[in-house]
Formats: sequence, structure tokens, C-alpha cells
Amino acid sequence: MATVIDGKVVAQTIRSEIADEVRLLSQKYGKVPGLAVVIVGNRKDSQSYVGMKRKACAELGIKSFDVDLPEQISQAELIKQVHELNANTDVHGILVQLPLPKHINEEKVLSEISLEKDVDGFHPLNIGKLAMKGRDPLLLTLVSKLCDPHYTKPACLELLQRSGVTIKGKKAVVVGRSNIVGLPASLLLLKADATVTIVHSHTSQPENIIREADIVIAAAGQPKMIKGSWIKPGAAVIDVGTNAVDDPTRKSGYRLVGDVDFEEASKTAGWITPVPGGVGPMTVTMLLKNTLEGAKRYIEQNN
Amino acid sequence: MATVIDGKVVAQTIRSEIADEVRLLSQKYGKVPGLAVVIVGNRKDSQSYVGMKRKACAELGIKSFDVDLPEQISQAELIKQVHELNANTDVHGILVQLPLPKHINEEKVLSEISLEKDVDGFHPLNIGKLAMKGRDPLLLTLVSKLCDPHYTKPACLELLQRSGVTIKGKKAVVVGRSNIVGLPASLLLLKADATVTIVHSHTSQPENIIREADIVIAAAGQPKMIKGSWIKPGAAVIDVGTNAVDDPTRKSGYRLVGDVDFEEASKTAGWITPVPGGVGPMTVTMLLKNTLEGAKRYIEQNN
Repeated sequence: MATVIDGKVVAQTIRSEIADEVRLLSQKYGKVPGLAVVIVGNRKDSQSYVGMKRKACAELGIKSFDVDLPEQISQAELIKQVHELNANTDVHGILVQLPLPKHINEEKVLSEISLEKDVDGFHPLNIGKLAMKGRDPLLLTLVSKLCDPHYTKPACLELLQRSGVTIKGKKAVVVGRSNIVGLPASLLLLKADATVTIVHSHTSQPENIIREADIVIAAAGQPKMIKGSWIKPGAAVIDVGTNAVDDPTRKSGYRLVGDVDFEEASKTAGWITPVPGGVGPMTVTMLLKNTLEGAKRYIEQNN
Repeated sequence: MATVIDGKVVAQTIRSEIADEVRLLSQKYGKVPGLAVVIVGNRKDSQSYVGMKRKACAELGIKSFDVDLPEQISQAELIKQVHELNANTDVHGILVQLPLPKHINEEKVLSEISLEKDVDGFHPLNIGKLAMKGRDPLLLTLVSKLCDPHYTKPACLELLQRSGVTIKGKKAVVVGRSNIVGLPASLLLLKADATVTIVHSHTSQPENIIREADIVIAAAGQPKMIKGSWIKPGAAVIDVGTNAVDDPTRKSGYRLVGDVDFEEASKTAGWITPVPGGVGPMTVTMLLKNTLEGAKRYIEQNN
């Protein structure tokens, strides 16, 4: 039976590390990291996510800049707000809660966030949303982050390393090639000296490729597409998928499942993340960690 | 026996297409593409390459801007020259011949070439020279090119497509992960819907992975490392390696070999490029094609 990687526990460990570092920054420079959390409109789910993020800031000593904008705001006005946050030297991270109202081009707005402050680039809820075609400012943003030695790892790599999984020399298979998860994960695994294969919707018999993998990153956005029999014994399986499937037994009418058949795969894998409770709880924490890193870079360079 | 892909013949076809397009541009707008070829110092080999490039420009109707600078030029002065060429609207491509003298940081100088005019990003002679570490302006340049729908393919993809090799849904293995060849080739193959694996020096038993490949891009910079027995029957093999090995029977004392054992591999492969005479002859041609594409973009937008 696999070791189940508990994202909540790992996230909690990282959060206490962040709190320590925030305290040190504050003692040394009298400054704390600042995260601007921008929300447009009154969606209940968005408000709940934003509330969670602002609360997490408060718990760790990160100053939260709350920007609540009306549903009717124009794209130009929203971008103006982003530019003001870009210019604000107390703000080290900017998060624009998605989805934005339909009259606003999300990709355009996100691409206006300055590179150093775009702390949310690896948002797993965006999987598969952006295809790799045309000129794509987000891909550029991501790759430039990957090229920055100070940039923090995406959650999937952090979970692997904190679970003691060796990456160097291992065969890694990334399922899905989105700009937001699949592609950055592939490049970072490559950088960490794994032999990387990227599998996607045009791959024939992906099971034969996945069966060879020591590390599987599932980011296809297809509920339970990866079967237990596809997993090599002892492999580390990180499931970034978060798919809502109908479940009439629940009050909500749905439940969340990953891209991996957890029940079966956990019999074979060496390590596996559950959905929910694996990569998910890491999301907000990585956002805070990215904000801390941005603040450290800025404050240390300007003091 | 494999079909040997003759890079000279393909290059000749592309050159006559370029000449046609240059003629059309000149008729329609009264303007021709311009390529600045910058050489520093008096190295014999560099002078011979530069001469080849300037001659090729003349043959295709591309205006060549010759910038010959003394060995002692300072890095700041060289960069000033690059900035002037960036600002010159008749120059659509800038090539700085490498290597530069030891007192000049090549990467720094290349990164000063404006994105739209950097026509030489995929230079195969640089294989393995730049590792993927640290913040790397060249990688950024490359990726932003890859994201530009107008940007021309690197030579290895052009050769595959012109030889009628299907890429979509095929298993492609790229051997080598340099920013200049391996990585861009991987991303472009992925974009063309191949299932891509990147193999490198930390990969154990690369032969087992390469044996599965329908398409092999060899860009490791290791003479004849890929054996004939590693090639799947019918595979397409593009050898980007150009390695000088000792050969006392030659006047020069050396000869060029690829990363693939051509003699053996050509018995099994479906298509294969020789070294020399495969990817090599495409280099100057792709440079000219990139210059033409840059000129078309600029002239069409500004007329």
C-alpha cells in the first residue's frame, strides 16, 4: 500500500516555515510581505476562496491588500487597478481571483500583472484552460519564472521533494501539457534531472508509457483516467486533477475526484496524493510562499 | 535502407522559395529584407562562415549589412553597435558570429539583440554550450519565439516535415536538453502533437527509450553515441550533432561526425540525416528564412 501524501500536513509545515521567515524579515527590516487579493463581483465560491486566502495571510503575518471591485467594472479600469498594485512597493504579490466576469479577458488581465508579483501562475484550477498556441503571454511568464533561480517550485514538485522522493535520474511522465501545470512541471522535472515524457490527448496507449514511470504527474483534467493497473509498483503519483463528478448522495450533488483512480492506484504506488487533500491544500500555501519569496527579493535588494 | 535526407537539396528548395518571396516583397513595397552580419576579430573560420552568409544574402536578394569590428572592441562598444542595428529599420535580422573574443560575454551580447531581429537563435554549433540553469535570457528569447505563430521552425522540424514524416501522435525522443536545440525542438514537437520524451546525461539506459521512438532528434554533442541497434525500424532520425573527431588520414587532422552511428543506423531507420550534409546545410538557409519572415512582419505592419 502506498504512503498517502497528506497535502494538509505538508502545507502546515510550509506555513510554519513561512511564519518564521516573515518574523525574521519584520525584525531585520521592519517590513512584511504584502499580498493583494483582487476580487471582481459577488460570486459565492470566489468570495469563499478569497476569504480563505486573506485569512491565511493574517495567520502568517503577511499583510493582505483587499481590492473588492464591482461586477460591472470595465477591463480597462481593472487593468488600471492592477497597474497601481504593480507600482505599490508594499505589495509583493498580486492575486486576481478567477473566474472574471464574461466581458473581461482573463488572460489579458493576468498578463498585466508584473512578472515579479505574479504569485499565482501555477493555479491548478486553470488546468487545460489555456492551450499552447499562438503567442501566449502566460507561457512566457511561466517560463521566465522557471528560469529564475529564486522562484519557488510548483506544488507538485514541492510535495515530491518533501516526501523524500528522488527525482534525479528517474523516469517521470507528465500527463497533460497545459501551460499552467503540465508544461512547467515537465520543465522543472527536467531541470531536476528526471527523464521526462509528456503524454497528452494525441498519445496512443498512454498506459504503456505511464507503466514505465517512477514519477507520474497527472494533470489532464479527466476524472479517473489513470487506472490502478497503469501504475508501476512503487511509483510516486501526484494527482493535480480536480474534477467535479455527479454524486446524488451528496447535498451538493457532486464530489471531487482526481485524474487517477486513487483506490486502485494506492494498492500499487509507493506514494500517492489523494483528491481532495493532496495538491489542493498546497495551492494557497504556495501562493503565500511565492509572496514571501517576492518580498524577500524586493526587500533585500532595496535595503 | 533508410531514405537519406539530403540537407543540401532541401536547403536549395527553401532558398528558391525565399528568392521568390524577396522578389514579391520588392515588387509590392520596394523594400528587401536586410541581414546584419557582425564579426569581431580575424578568426579564419569565422571569416569563412561570415563570407558564406553574406554571399547567400546576395544570391537571394537580401541586403547584407557588413559590420566588421576589431578584436579589441569593448563589450560596451559592441553592445552599442547591436543597439544601433536594433534601431535600424532596414535591418530585419542580426547575426553576431560566434565565438566572440574572450573578454566579451557572448550570452550578454546575444541577449541585447532585439527579439524580432534575433534570427540565429537555433544555431546548432552552440549545442550543449548553455545549460538550463539560472535566469537565462536566451531561453526566454527562444520560448517567446516558439510562442510566436509567425516564427519559423528550427531546421530539424523543417527537415522532418519536408521529408513527409508525420509528427502528430508519434513518439518522439529528443536526446539532449540544450536551450538552443533540445528544448525548443521538444516544445515544438509537443506543439505538433507528438508524445515527447527528453533524454539526457542523467537518463539510465537511454537505448531502451530511443528504441521506442518513431522520431529521434539527436542533439547531445556526443560522437556516435546513438548506435544502429537503438533505432526502431522505420524511424526518422535527425542528427543535429556536429562533432569533430581525430582523423589522421585527413589533411585537417579531423572529420565531422554526428551523434548517431550513421552507417549502422541507416540500415534500420526509415529516414536519416547524414553528418555532414544533413542539418548543417540548413543552418544558413534557416537564418535567411528567419530574416525574410522578420522583414515580412515588419514591412507588412509598417506599410
